[in-house]
Amino acid sequence: MGFMKYRLKCELSYKISQYSTFLFNICPVNTDFQTVIEEHLTLDPPLNTEEYITPVLGNRYFRVNLDSGNLLLDYQATVEVSYQNINPSDITETIPAQLPLETVPFLYPSRYCQSDRLIRLVQQEFGELQPGYSRVEAICNWIYDNVTYLSGSTNAQTSAYDTATERAGVCRDFAHLGIAFCRALNIPARFVSNYACGLEPPDFHAVFEAYLGDRWYLFDPTRLVPRQALIRIGTGRDAADVSFATLFGTVVMERKHICVEFIEGKFPSYTTDAVMPVTKP
Amino acid sequence: MGFMKYRLKCELSYKISQYSTFLFNICPVNTDFQTVIEEHLTLDPPLNTEEYITPVLGNRYFRVNLDSGNLLLDYQATVEVSYQNINPSDITETIPAQLPLETVPFLYPSRYCQSDRLIRLVQQEFGELQPGYSRVEAICNWIYDNVTYLSGSTNAQTSAYDTATERAGVCRDFAHLGIAFCRALNIPARFVSNYACGLEPPDFHAVFEAYLGDRWYLFDPTRLVPRQALIRIGTGRDAADVSFATLFGTVVMERKHICVEFIEGKFPSYTTDAVMPVTKP
Amino acid sequence: MGFMKYRLKCELSYKISQYSTFLFNICPVNTDFQTVIEEHLTLDPPLNTEEYITPVLGNRYFRVNLDSGNLLLDYQATVEVSYQNINPSDITETIPAQLPLETVPFLYPSRYCQSDRLIRLVQQEFGELQPGYSRVEAICNWIYDNVTYLSGSTNAQTSAYDTATERAGVCRDFAHLGIAFCRALNIPARFVSNYACGLEPPDFHAVFEAYLGDRWYLFDPTRLVPRQALIRIGTGRDAADVSFATLFGTVVMERKHICVEFIEGKFPSYTTDAVMPVTKP
Amino acid sequence: MGFMKYRLKCELSYKISQYSTFLFNICPVNTDFQTVIEEHLTLDPPLNTEEYITPVLGNRYFRVNLDSGNLLLDYQATVEVSYQNINPSDITETIPAQLPLETVPFLYPSRYCQSDRLIRLVQQEFGELQPGYSRVEAICNWIYDNVTYLSGSTNAQTSAYDTATERAGVCRDFAHLGIAFCRALNIPARFVSNYACGLEPPDFHAVFEAYLGDRWYLFDPTRLVPRQALIRIGTGRDAADVSFATLFGTVVMERKHICVEFIEGKFPSYTTDAVMPVTKP
Repeated sequence: MGFMKYRLKCELSYKISQYSTFLFNICPVNTDFQTVIEEHLTLDPPLNTEEYITPVLGNRYFRVNLDSGNLLLDYQATVEVSYQNINPSDITETIPAQLPLETVPFLYPSRYCQSDRLIRLVQQEFGELQPGYSRVEAICNWIYDNVTYLSGSTNAQTSAYDTATERAGVCRDFAHLGIAFCRALNIPARFVSNYACGLEPPDFHAVFEAYLGDRWYLFDPTRLVPRQALIRIGTGRDAADVSFATLFGTVVMERKHICVEFIEGKFPSYTTDAVMPVTKP
Repeated sequence: MGFMKYRLKCELSYKISQYSTFLFNICPVNTDFQTVIEEHLTLDPPLNTEEYITPVLGNRYFRVNLDSGNLLLDYQATVEVSYQNINPSDITETIPAQLPLETVPFLYPSRYCQSDRLIRLVQQEFGELQPGYSRVEAICNWIYDNVTYLSGSTNAQTSAYDTATERAGVCRDFAHLGIAFCRALNIPARFVSNYACGLEPPDFHAVFEAYLGDRWYLFDPTRLVPRQALIRIGTGRDAADVSFATLFGTVVMERKHICVEFIEGKFPSYTTDAVMPVTKP
Repeated sequence: MGFMKYRLKCELSYKISQYSTFLFNICPVNTDFQTVIEEHLTLDPPLNTEEYITPVLGNRYFRVNLDSGNLLLDYQATVEVSYQNINPSDITETIPAQLPLETVPFLYPSRYCQSDRLIRLVQQEFGELQPGYSRVEAICNWIYDNVTYLSGSTNAQTSAYDTATERAGVCRDFAHLGIAFCRALNIPARFVSNYACGLEPPDFHAVFEAYLGDRWYLFDPTRLVPRQALIRIGTGRDAADVSFATLFGTVVMERKHICVEFIEGKFPSYTTDAVMPVTKP
Repeated sequence: MGFMKYRLKCELSYKISQYSTFLFNICPVNTDFQTVIEEHLTLDPPLNTEEYITPVLGNRYFRVNLDSGNLLLDYQATVEVSYQNINPSDITETIPAQLPLETVPFLYPSRYCQSDRLIRLVQQEFGELQPGYSRVEAICNWIYDNVTYLSGSTNAQTSAYDTATERAGVCRDFAHLGIAFCRALNIPARFVSNYACGLEPPDFHAVFEAYLGDRWYLFDPTRLVPRQALIRIGTGRDAADVSFATLFGTVVMERKHICVEFIEGKFPSYTTDAVMPVTKP
């Protein structure tokens, strides 16, 4: 069991050339396993925000509208998160006959995770493997081994179907491919956007969760940071659901600066254990 | 204002060669605007079903597990539904700055509706048109005029991106294209699966809804049946969410027989009005 | 060294509903290594044909124009072909610096062989292997092991990019994938359409050639017939160049019947040797 | 009838990090309608080149191999070219029944021009138009009106199928789309790479030719320069055939500088006439 406290900072700046709307998803979720102890949002110019929290997953969006000019956003928060490490050998897959029905939408193909087009590939690569945690780990290893992490090699339209063949991408593409592979094996899988302590260069970070046994476990095929170093922002079917900023209008991002500090608890470390977020005891 | 009562029947038969799981989405929703007065499901062999109703949209799924053999499903229901016709000239678009935030997920691209890849096409074809109901109608007209309704021309992998270029499809493809075009204009849009009275040959029928003003309105670019002849089964981002049968296992469908009878109320007719489902007064 | 004589027969029948043009590519090439000893073409109705032989590769096309009605085509030929088996361990790759420049067009991506999109995949799967014949053989083995031969799983639009991910297809798809993989390794590769003795059910058959050392060698990732059982019809960049019938008009094929008999020489047998067509001594 | 003399200069510089091979296609063709009066190629370091001229189309390639270091290429030439303007109303289409068979390969789909996937779109947009020059002109107008010329919006993998939907691109994408549209109407079409006098910023320029009546006519849907301002480098099925530099190895282009001066003859002007290159009288 591990508990960590992080301080994080996110600065964004935009140049807007006409009336525009921003839908930000940069505030960490407040859930069983994660508590935003304090947070502070500054907008320059000062603007009203309208917040929306999604019913089941608790993603926190806020909307800002403004005319042409510049927008500076400074968000700071202190967040506590608890993780549990579990022996992976005890973790099985749950067959579709027994999956909780609310996990089933995470089996459906989505914009960036066309699992329906990857079924044979997945059967050939992973179909013979022992079901369970180790099979999802095999998926992550395959991605790590076969896909080159390469900044700038992909764009906002790149999907798992492309990455399966083109074999290059960034964290978002790695997560999409992991999700698509899991779904093609009838393992529910979903996209998780995060702050990540220790990521170089600092940025938002995408990983995925797979539903095994009776819970969601975290997987990061990029191996860039320990999974306990993640502060969750959003959970969704894929990146379309949890973009850090959805923009309507004519906007150019001029700066993105992220900073995450570890301030208390058990220092996050790499582990081959299963990692799941849990309620702080 | 129109109120209609329908009696419907759905027979499905499958041949199963090994232990398989079915997730059916064939029962009409019970909502403000639609009431399932009575219904009866018979499975042969008789099997337990596990029902799941989605939290917000009320889609009704049930799961059946069975070993090899045959499955016969017979579902019958009597359903009341109320629709209101509205003068389209009064219906405006709502800009992203003012959209209810719970409609925003229906702006995101999805598996079959890659609105992010159609933005320029949509701007060129519809960008100059007057915003409002008539613009979504122009989208439907474009689809009707430019896409050939052709059974068998597409498959379960066909998406709006394909149909935009290949210009042939069935009701599902027409709906996906309508949804993708709307989203590319920042109009929330979603997929609706239905029973449809008068459809020849009888089958499930897919249409879409667009969020205009402060409500969802129905659109059917196929023009195959009046919109008041629809009994809603499911609402989702696209067909992935509301497949009438999601199958896990080795299964062949041997028969699908749908029958819908109008039994009471105002006989559904074609209209150029806007049509929205409403609470029965 | 092997020499074989084959008798072949091709019957095609079409129903034409308006003035149409056929461009057939069903006559075996006459080249150094293959001689059409006799041939006979019957068309019913009797029609003029216009023949065209491509300058470098010697593909033989003939054009027929006709009004609505039926077309019956009966083509028979006796063909001699010579093959040489070579010890694969002696066969090297030729680097781009030394390739004959007339082979370079067979390095370019083509409609069905998008080698430019498969470079990383190919590097990961085959990049570390010893260059030479054995590497192209490894490509064929990979295709045989990872792609399911499944009639009806693909169509005339299916390309190597699809097959790399979707992992099912027919001989044409196997050949396209082999070609795309070779080109991505800078090995010139081209499509070969054939009659094939022993193919069940009888049909045209597609394989590919790769340029190694200073020659073109035959490869068949389907393993359906010995390579010496092939009577070459056409050679091209991919299937687009050597379709057995390119149709302009409104035409339905009603029958395709192929028959190939071995009549003299060395009976074709499976071999792990390299096989290349050669001049009869 | 117009005759023009141009002086052109092409400087390319590359940084090579390991033994690499370049296949350049930067020398204008020497044909009936175009004469390279003088030319001079300087390579630094001085290196042997191996030239290859394609049999039918006369494209001129040369190969250079070198170890790591820098390559500076300076090519200068004086070229004479003759064009004829023709009244477009006299120019008809030639049906497949009568096309010269050597033009038929330019009806086949190719890597970047997937005409087979655009048939319905083309029928809907252009199928009803009067066959002839004006129909190809309508294609060019459609492209000009519906596709945004936008540097950097596409890459070396972008094809006509993408551009038909995504509606942005550069000259190469415009030409690919024009070619694909023509082929889908059974009009042979091919890619032409050029130097272009007056292009801003100076660069290579791609246009296409369509076979109408009994000849190839030039079309430029970008409208960036008069067609008589083109000095032809290569002719092919699409850009894959006539890339100005095909690279094998690890190479970065550091500079590309093109300069074209009009030096004698009839100054090129925009015209709505048909333009075809012709033998100088």
